[in-house]
Amino acid sequence: MLEAVTGNLTEPVATPWTRSDGGVSDEDVQAIDLWWRTANYLSVGQIYLLDNPLLREPLQRDHVKPRLVGHWGTTPGLNFIYSHLNRAILRRLQPAMYIIGPGHGGPGLVAASFLDGTYTTTYHDISYDEAGIKRLFTQFSFPGGIPSHVAPETPGSIHEGGELGYALSHAYGAAFDNPDLLVAAVVGDGEAETGPLATSWHSNKFIDPATDGVVLPILHLNGYKIANPTVLARISDEELHALMVGYGHKPHFFVAGFDDEDHLSIHRRFAELLDTVLDEIAAVKAAAAADPAIDRPAWPMIVLRTPKGWTCPPEIDGKRTENSWRAHQVPLASARDTDEHLHVLEDWLQSYRPEELFDASGAPKPEVTALTPPGDLRMSATPHANGGLLLRDLALPDFRDFAVDVPAPGSAPVEATRVLGSWLKEVMARNLDNFRVFAPDELASNRIQAVLDVTDKAWNAALDDDDEHLGKSGQVVEMLSEHQCQGWLEGYLLTGRHGLFTSYEAFIHIVDSMLNQHAKWLKVSRELEWRRPIASLNYLLSSHVWRQDHNGFSHQDPGFIDHVVNKKAEVVRVYLPPDANTLLSVYDHCLRSRDYVNVVVAGKQPQASWLTMEEAIHHCTRGAGIWEFASNVPTGEEPDVVIAAAGDVPTLEALAAIDIIREELPDLKVRMVNVVDLMRLQPSEEHPHGMTDREFDQLFTVDKPIIFAYHGYPWLIHRLTYRRHGHHNLHVRGYIEEGTTTTPFDMAMLNKMDRFYLVMKVIERVPSLGSRAALLAQKLDDRRMAARQYARQHGEDPVEIRDWVWPDAREVSGEGSVSATAATGGDNE
Amino acid sequence: MLEAVTGNLTEPVATPWTRSDGGVSDEDVQAIDLWWRTANYLSVGQIYLLDNPLLREPLQRDHVKPRLVGHWGTTPGLNFIYSHLNRAILRRLQPAMYIIGPGHGGPGLVAASFLDGTYTTTYHDISYDEAGIKRLFTQFSFPGGIPSHVAPETPGSIHEGGELGYALSHAYGAAFDNPDLLVAAVVGDGEAETGPLATSWHSNKFIDPATDGVVLPILHLNGYKIANPTVLARISDEELHALMVGYGHKPHFFVAGFDDEDHLSIHRRFAELLDTVLDEIAAVKAAAAADPAIDRPAWPMIVLRTPKGWTCPPEIDGKRTENSWRAHQVPLASARDTDEHLHVLEDWLQSYRPEELFDASGAPKPEVTALTPPGDLRMSATPHANGGLLLRDLALPDFRDFAVDVPAPGSAPVEATRVLGSWLKEVMARNLDNFRVFAPDELASNRIQAVLDVTDKAWNAALDDDDEHLGKSGQVVEMLSEHQCQGWLEGYLLTGRHGLFTSYEAFIHIVDSMLNQHAKWLKVSRELEWRRPIASLNYLLSSHVWRQDHNGFSHQDPGFIDHVVNKKAEVVRVYLPPDANTLLSVYDHCLRSRDYVNVVVAGKQPQASWLTMEEAIHHCTRGAGIWEFASNVPTGEEPDVVIAAAGDVPTLEALAAIDIIREELPDLKVRMVNVVDLMRLQPSEEHPHGMTDREFDQLFTVDKPIIFAYHGYPWLIHRLTYRRHGHHNLHVRGYIEEGTTTTPFDMAMLNKMDRFYLVMKVIERVPSLGSRAALLAQKLDDRRMAARQYARQHGEDPVEIRDWVWPDAREVSGEGSVSATAATGGDNE
Repeated sequence: MLEAVTGNLTEPVATPWTRSDGGVSDEDVQAIDLWWRTANYLSVGQIYLLDNPLLREPLQRDHVKPRLVGHWGTTPGLNFIYSHLNRAILRRLQPAMYIIGPGHGGPGLVAASFLDGTYTTTYHDISYDEAGIKRLFTQFSFPGGIPSHVAPETPGSIHEGGELGYALSHAYGAAFDNPDLLVAAVVGDGEAETGPLATSWHSNKFIDPATDGVVLPILHLNGYKIANPTVLARISDEELHALMVGYGHKPHFFVAGFDDEDHLSIHRRFAELLDTVLDEIAAVKAAAAADPAIDRPAWPMIVLRTPKGWTCPPEIDGKRTENSWRAHQVPLASARDTDEHLHVLEDWLQSYRPEELFDASGAPKPEVTALTPPGDLRMSATPHANGGLLLRDLALPDFRDFAVDVPAPGSAPVEATRVLGSWLKEVMARNLDNFRVFAPDELASNRIQAVLDVTDKAWNAALDDDDEHLGKSGQVVEMLSEHQCQGWLEGYLLTGRHGLFTSYEAFIHIVDSMLNQHAKWLKVSRELEWRRPIASLNYLLSSHVWRQDHNGFSHQDPGFIDHVVNKKAEVVRVYLPPDANTLLSVYDHCLRSRDYVNVVVAGKQPQASWLTMEEAIHHCTRGAGIWEFASNVPTGEEPDVVIAAAGDVPTLEALAAIDIIREELPDLKVRMVNVVDLMRLQPSEEHPHGMTDREFDQLFTVDKPIIFAYHGYPWLIHRLTYRRHGHHNLHVRGYIEEGTTTTPFDMAMLNKMDRFYLVMKVIERVPSLGSRAALLAQKLDDRRMAARQYARQHGEDPVEIRDWVWPDAREVSGEGSVSATAATGGDNE
Repeated sequence: MLEAVTGNLTEPVATPWTRSDGGVSDEDVQAIDLWWRTANYLSVGQIYLLDNPLLREPLQRDHVKPRLVGHWGTTPGLNFIYSHLNRAILRRLQPAMYIIGPGHGGPGLVAASFLDGTYTTTYHDISYDEAGIKRLFTQFSFPGGIPSHVAPETPGSIHEGGELGYALSHAYGAAFDNPDLLVAAVVGDGEAETGPLATSWHSNKFIDPATDGVVLPILHLNGYKIANPTVLARISDEELHALMVGYGHKPHFFVAGFDDEDHLSIHRRFAELLDTVLDEIAAVKAAAAADPAIDRPAWPMIVLRTPKGWTCPPEIDGKRTENSWRAHQVPLASARDTDEHLHVLEDWLQSYRPEELFDASGAPKPEVTALTPPGDLRMSATPHANGGLLLRDLALPDFRDFAVDVPAPGSAPVEATRVLGSWLKEVMARNLDNFRVFAPDELASNRIQAVLDVTDKAWNAALDDDDEHLGKSGQVVEMLSEHQCQGWLEGYLLTGRHGLFTSYEAFIHIVDSMLNQHAKWLKVSRELEWRRPIASLNYLLSSHVWRQDHNGFSHQDPGFIDHVVNKKAEVVRVYLPPDANTLLSVYDHCLRSRDYVNVVVAGKQPQASWLTMEEAIHHCTRGAGIWEFASNVPTGEEPDVVIAAAGDVPTLEALAAIDIIREELPDLKVRMVNVVDLMRLQPSEEHPHGMTDREFDQLFTVDKPIIFAYHGYPWLIHRLTYRRHGHHNLHVRGYIEEGTTTTPFDMAMLNKMDRFYLVMKVIERVPSLGSRAALLAQKLDDRRMAARQYARQHGEDPVEIRDWVWPDAREVSGEGSVSATAATGGDNE
């Protein structure tokens, strides 16, 4: 009966972090074993069976799926832990969630969710009876069905694990600001070899026992990967113990399944261990409640050593299978082809004694689910794993109040990210329990450190007198690992909170693959009605490709944009605000959005402002538009040439080019177009933000030369626009992997994205200029070369370039009094 | 005198792994200190000085650079270690190289190389005197000069460190198969927080004391990053000790610089420690020489705790600077602007007592370089750091001998990577000391495990009776970390050896950022005459996007190609061989090539062969060409439509589409084009492999519809061809992030890259087909939908699709007897 399992579906009254109530009863042990056997049975069934789900008739070959795809090896261990956690949650009414590094163990988590009743209440056609179990089996890893891994389709999961390495960073992200939540995180010993996982153990230096939840890492050593033993299973217990102590944990070792020990005895031992561990956690929580300043505790963790594929046939065809890499995937691949293997499969399934597990209707018997926690305490039903349910809108201060006053275009040079920081400080102040900023030691370098006026950087390691802004509790989290920042933020967002990740543009590639997985998760989640929208994953990328004065070539790469644009159009957005006011407007939009990946690239160097706040809002709302102040032809009238720009440095160079044109070719009709929302360039049928062809033509014309100064690799603009009418007239300048220099203009020159080169391109593309053209081109080339020579002699750009200001700003404040770019300063790292 | 330093430039007779000769003399300590002070002086000078390099006149403001860019913080520590290593190398005649995780410390390594004389012999204009030192200072982090980081321009380096995390994996890569080499690897405590570094400590389980070199990790705790303390500097010594023991090391702690201890005393202590450590290493090497089967030793490592910015002013403007994050970059940013700061800088420089360090000509005095090792033993001059000098060509077996016999196109279904494996086995057998294969537990899954017939997988952890192919020494290295595989391979290649990295296509994105850095290194190295070409970095990507039967959506991403194509054209190559023979031909080419990144994507599932070996060689040599067997119009004659394909699954679907066209539209003139070398599509002026427009037009026509079935994201083909005449006729089908399925054809359908859809596109694009078209389109759509329905009911593709064979192959072996795709089998993970 489904109702018996799902119990009270309303939020339970939980009193977390209680001590054990005094021991493990025989009934507990019995119920744990029943549940485990059932979950294992349902897991094997999913991998193999097309029909006859409860073996109520002899198994026939055509009951077996024709293509056997799935992963058994890790599954029984995941089921074992789940079964024991159920008891602990029930006994303590402890809110908990389950993060599964070995996401390949999809059958196990699907089985658990089915046993919890959650699967049936989520997917009504998977009824809580034999017919439902048949459908549960058939759909698994089947065309039109569900994937073989834990996935968005799996209730209770925020974590797929298709790509390994992020179990702990996701778990800690979930635990931040959830002081009552226990996050049980299973780390596979395969996953434990990855870099991101290896450093994520250190997350415990960033968690506060008083104000955050608790992560219980369970390192599951089943010994094997696809075709190799694992490193951590093959070092001594002494080394492994030292490693965990070194990571700041108190390890508890548990070994089972390698000898004849009765399963009930194993269950008793593990239930007792789990009680001990949870009591230790409860003691820490109590101590922290009494004194929030307690020293960082050595949080307990469990090393669980069990055989890979535990409970599958010990040998198949004379080869060791249980406790071998051979159990990794489908231990018995030809059950449909030979009677011998068919019987091996049948015996294996029968070994769980299904007749003891299911009632006449095929529903799991009540004694199987006797320890299932009530309502939302079921790990498959916790709202933390469907974060949108818990999501509260941010209280956002009006970004207009933080606007830079721009008396004329080109005036008011500011550091755009610093201006954003002043707004983010106020965002932080108003949302101190559900907003976090993550950075790999680049918060201050990227100039948004104003947030530290209202919160600390979380730090639960030793302190020094000279430290600034470090605290046990804090909403900024900095560790020099982009993997950690991304993983923490994902975990935080997926459990219903808000945040952003600021990084250097070049090194955000470190998380390319993590972004892939998150974007895929969002893509699938959006198709699942029951998964509620979560806050977007917001990047603030600064120290960008054009300003690597300190660091040079190794720090130059604008290709993350290209990577993101490959993801499903409905989940990705890319913004290149040209100044501080547009950055404010864009970021306000990002923090309000849901289910997107928003990539915002903005400069941290002093640079001119172009738009008043009202203009900025108007411009950002349209995403791309004509800048009339920089055009010398009315918007309705056809220009001779379109000069376009996307990105702050490209916009500056494009405007400086227009300034030269005004002087040298005053009768040339120039239209300036600025693009802030890159996705506007795509066709409307390819991206929700895409312009119609009509809109595109109105901006860019159908037949006039377009000189486009772009922030990133130039071909992305071609890729986005190749179907447009004007595309054959489009010439794009951007970054082209050309070495290094330490001055901003020299850098632009190196990539031929400088003002002089842009004008030379205009000359080349506008045939009507006639004989003046060659002469002017020569003159501009001379100026370019003189600028380079100056930089190489003096180590800085010539004053007339460094201090160039747009004409309108000269009128406001006197020529030379403000400059459009920074005279000094580097990238601060 | 330069000669006094460079000494004997020929290879020294080294007797590595000797014990200490008995103590640290006063002269040693004195010489170490002189060298250290000189290196520090030269480092500060690089960051600050434009003129007056040896302070032979009072420092003036205009002696200071106008833009101060560089990193001081880590530099004195790097110099300290270098100075001590010099003594150890000289005393023991121990070949050694120096890998510097904190690559920001460029000034230090440039200074060391200058002191060694290597800089001057490499760059003659940086003479070994005052004039040379002035140029050395000026060029540093200056337009037209050298980057602020350790870089390809720095002699003795194989490692930049601009992006952090790879010091140890590079170091172990260098040590593999170099049994006499000591690789001293400095790990910064910032870098130590990254994921890749955190797992790379485990590299010691993959190194053989008998046949490999030794890595000496030096964890340099200077306590601070850009704006934060570091984690490892703020945990207790007990935890850090446990962590290192857990990683399998024997840690030696050394603390200096935090009190008044005399520098000479510090040097004596560290010299003695280094002797102890090198004696321990010598003892292990001796034991391993005596008994290659010794248990894995706990290799010694050093924890070196010194103040950040050691020896810079303790305070500036009343703020702690030495031993603070404030020393990270340029501690004194306004030395040109205020007299006060100018004097602080002058006093700082004078504190190294330059008058004791340089002779009248400005050359470092002989006593400064008294401990510089001779010739190639200088770490700045070791040939291991200019691997091309040591590179030997591989002895390659003739790949033609491994050809698949292809009696007719579409016959001989084989697993392409398995065929490649049979050749790689022979490559391995002939090159057992300078060829390695790296894989993240995916060697067997990607089907190239035949190499294990001739070598083991390196494994120096515990063994189990059931283990296969594991050995203390072995040329295959598998750990479940793409970062490790990439880092090891880079280190191996950069020190003059050969190798390949096989991975799942989707997860190679994990190393996107590492690939960036390696490609940048190659790009710059190619411009440096003295850096000799090294073997290419070869990827073999399998388990690709179209065959994720087991794993689904999370394992689908063909975007690594897009990422690679953003890199400098002269260093990247992408190959999509459509069958086994083309794969052999391509890979032979890759293993012979130099200084490239070669990306090869190939399937591991049984699939038809299309070309005989002679045809395959011809096809691969051209990189793209017309397949006459699949075209029904002579090559010189214009077709009605071009059907093109790149990639194995797209080629199969394209040919199946042509088969349908032959049946349904026999009078339609079809040309089939296959592209194996993707870079051929680019314009010849953009990529060395690019076709001329004339060649492109001859293949693709200028005005006929082109239906292009492509392996990856479709827009890459547009990006590569948007300038071509035929581009407006080009329709590309590829992967479009569309969920998951478990059967191959259902997957193709999901992305509209299947045979039926391709034919429907032909119908849509060829207007001359008239009224037949609509009817046929409907029929094809019906067949598509029927196929989907079948798959969703039966869990496999319909037989007529699964077992489809190209007509020529039917004639050879009877219809249905061979199928073009695998009936069963998944992706084996």
